[in-house]
Amino acid sequence: MNAGAPVARAFRIVARAGRARAGVIETAHGPIETPVFMPVGTQATVKALSSGDLERLGPQIILGNTYHLALRPGAERIAALGGLHRFMSWPRAILTDSGGYQVFSLRARRTVDDDGVTFSSHIDGSPQRLTPERAMEIQTLLGSDIAMAFDECPPSDAPRATIEAAMARTTQWARRCLAVAPPTGQLRFGIGQGGVHLDLRRAHLHELTALPFDGFALGGLGVGEAPEIMHGVIDVVAEEMPADRPRYLMGVGTPEDIWRAIGAGIDMFDCVMPTRNARNGQLFVHGGRLNIANTQHRSDPQPVEAGCACECCSTYSRAYLAHLFHAKELLYYRLATAHNLEHYLNLARRARAAIAGGAFPTTPW
Amino acid sequence: MNAGAPVARAFRIVARAGRARAGVIETAHGPIETPVFMPVGTQATVKALSSGDLERLGPQIILGNTYHLALRPGAERIAALGGLHRFMSWPRAILTDSGGYQVFSLRARRTVDDDGVTFSSHIDGSPQRLTPERAMEIQTLLGSDIAMAFDECPPSDAPRATIEAAMARTTQWARRCLAVAPPTGQLRFGIGQGGVHLDLRRAHLHELTALPFDGFALGGLGVGEAPEIMHGVIDVVAEEMPADRPRYLMGVGTPEDIWRAIGAGIDMFDCVMPTRNARNGQLFVHGGRLNIANTQHRSDPQPVEAGCACECCSTYSRAYLAHLFHAKELLYYRLATAHNLEHYLNLARRARAAIAGGAFPTTPW
Repeated sequence: MNAGAPVARAFRIVARAGRARAGVIETAHGPIETPVFMPVGTQATVKALSSGDLERLGPQIILGNTYHLALRPGAERIAALGGLHRFMSWPRAILTDSGGYQVFSLRARRTVDDDGVTFSSHIDGSPQRLTPERAMEIQTLLGSDIAMAFDECPPSDAPRATIEAAMARTTQWARRCLAVAPPTGQLRFGIGQGGVHLDLRRAHLHELTALPFDGFALGGLGVGEAPEIMHGVIDVVAEEMPADRPRYLMGVGTPEDIWRAIGAGIDMFDCVMPTRNARNGQLFVHGGRLNIANTQHRSDPQPVEAGCACECCSTYSRAYLAHLFHAKELLYYRLATAHNLEHYLNLARRARAAIAGGAFPTTPW
Repeated sequence: MNAGAPVARAFRIVARAGRARAGVIETAHGPIETPVFMPVGTQATVKALSSGDLERLGPQIILGNTYHLALRPGAERIAALGGLHRFMSWPRAILTDSGGYQVFSLRARRTVDDDGVTFSSHIDGSPQRLTPERAMEIQTLLGSDIAMAFDECPPSDAPRATIEAAMARTTQWARRCLAVAPPTGQLRFGIGQGGVHLDLRRAHLHELTALPFDGFALGGLGVGEAPEIMHGVIDVVAEEMPADRPRYLMGVGTPEDIWRAIGAGIDMFDCVMPTRNARNGQLFVHGGRLNIANTQHRSDPQPVEAGCACECCSTYSRAYLAHLFHAKELLYYRLATAHNLEHYLNLARRARAAIAGGAFPTTPW
């Protein structure tokens, strides 16, 4: 390719409705139709599900976590075993985060310098070091289809000066990430910071989008700020991101959050909410949520959600699921997880269908 | 049927090799080919497995537990929801134990009288009462295919006089169990006690086999006595049990125990060993066991057992399973459980094939 010329794009838009877009991202492990929700498989497993369960649910891409996998079982070990796809027996696309968000969450156990971050493992307290170069190396060893740049993610309540410093460092680190030769077929995404300050968000995206990333993400949102504040930022910033590359809102959020962000022009999402909330008893249903711990469900022969195609709803009653939950039976976690993921995956499919139809409603219900 | 005449038999023997038998038990939910291992589904779930997983593993019968299900979610509730098969979405046969073994395990929390047992719930401490009549009523409400008589199961180290008293009470209770009208199609099995005393075992079986049960079980074995002592009892007693009815050795044991007992003429087995040991990291493989916690497995690309058809072995490496175990990921429990059950179910299938071939080897390997 020519320096400065556009790189071959892995992304194309196939439909629009207002600011919402439907597209396709081509990866080394198949196409991803956007808008897309990506289930989180932190430790090389979407908690409680097998790869067979996942294939039945049908996500085209899932997430892996650089921080967790590098600590255990180790990126070199996964590479020796044939890479993350083979290790976890997952044939479709994988996006790996860079570890930035996790190491900056370890506030009491890490020190940052311009070169990288030193931290202690949450597993055994051993000293660890993550730099932009090592973050990309790990993602190469894992063999992910989409690698994220290593970023500094400041807390939601950080002072403006702290956010500005994190932006500057993230830009420097983004250049270093891109200087590491990518493995064949791997796409690389940059991460914009800037807290809830519109001017900072714009300034940082301006710096990052000058770099030849295959896509761009918004980091540092949904980290404690009020939802209306978050959406205020997304509503303005999303459509200012490059139109010809995927836009990824990291770690957000509720079904309503995702729907609204799709309407603002975001293409990709991940969140632990469907999986984590499932384990705590909260199940997403059309138009709301139910708490399986509530007494009324213990005798209810209905499925969690009528018409839902997941293993839970197609096989079992609310009463059975409530029984498993109260008895703390392992099967509960799997059935509830499958249901909530089906709900999120179906939300994204419905959004795509609406955009293809040329009209994107303001709410999903 | 005429009083005193043989009842219509649900069991037929199709092959013999020495004292070992291969047979078929006809139930309201399909035939059971013996020798058979029955996975234990204590709380209306074989721990960590869905009914779909179970159907892939292929047991023709599983166990449910009267004591646990009566306490939670409640036998009347399960009946209102259509019975245990429908509740747990299991289309094949179910055997329910009578609760006797569990309530007699609650040594500090129960009092026995000739009418029944009063005990406090392990869930909430509430007072509970189990009698022969209530045990059969619960099993009717659950809708099991094979119901066990309510027995008094003395501890393995009980004095001879205690065992004799338990035998006398168990015989009285057996008569009361049979006096409760069975639901259509339900088979009923009596349970012989007698500890490790051959004369007591013979005496109790003599009393019980005079009653019109559809099958007979040996209770109170594998409860702490040395394996050689246990097998010494089984080797003598099994062939003295009625030849025309299924013989069930309750709660035993290792693959080697089961193989040897099949050779002595036992037809049916259940045990928590494959499922419980799986959760603790012990996996059964041809000729032995492995502990997935051992360091050597962390980099091993081989399956747990080459040639095994289970979801674990056909999909994942030892390295992946070891990773899930160390990370305490929920998926570990399911994969390990599926593997160990496949091992036990396959053991019973191999035993049946050997008997059909006319020669039953002394060891399974």
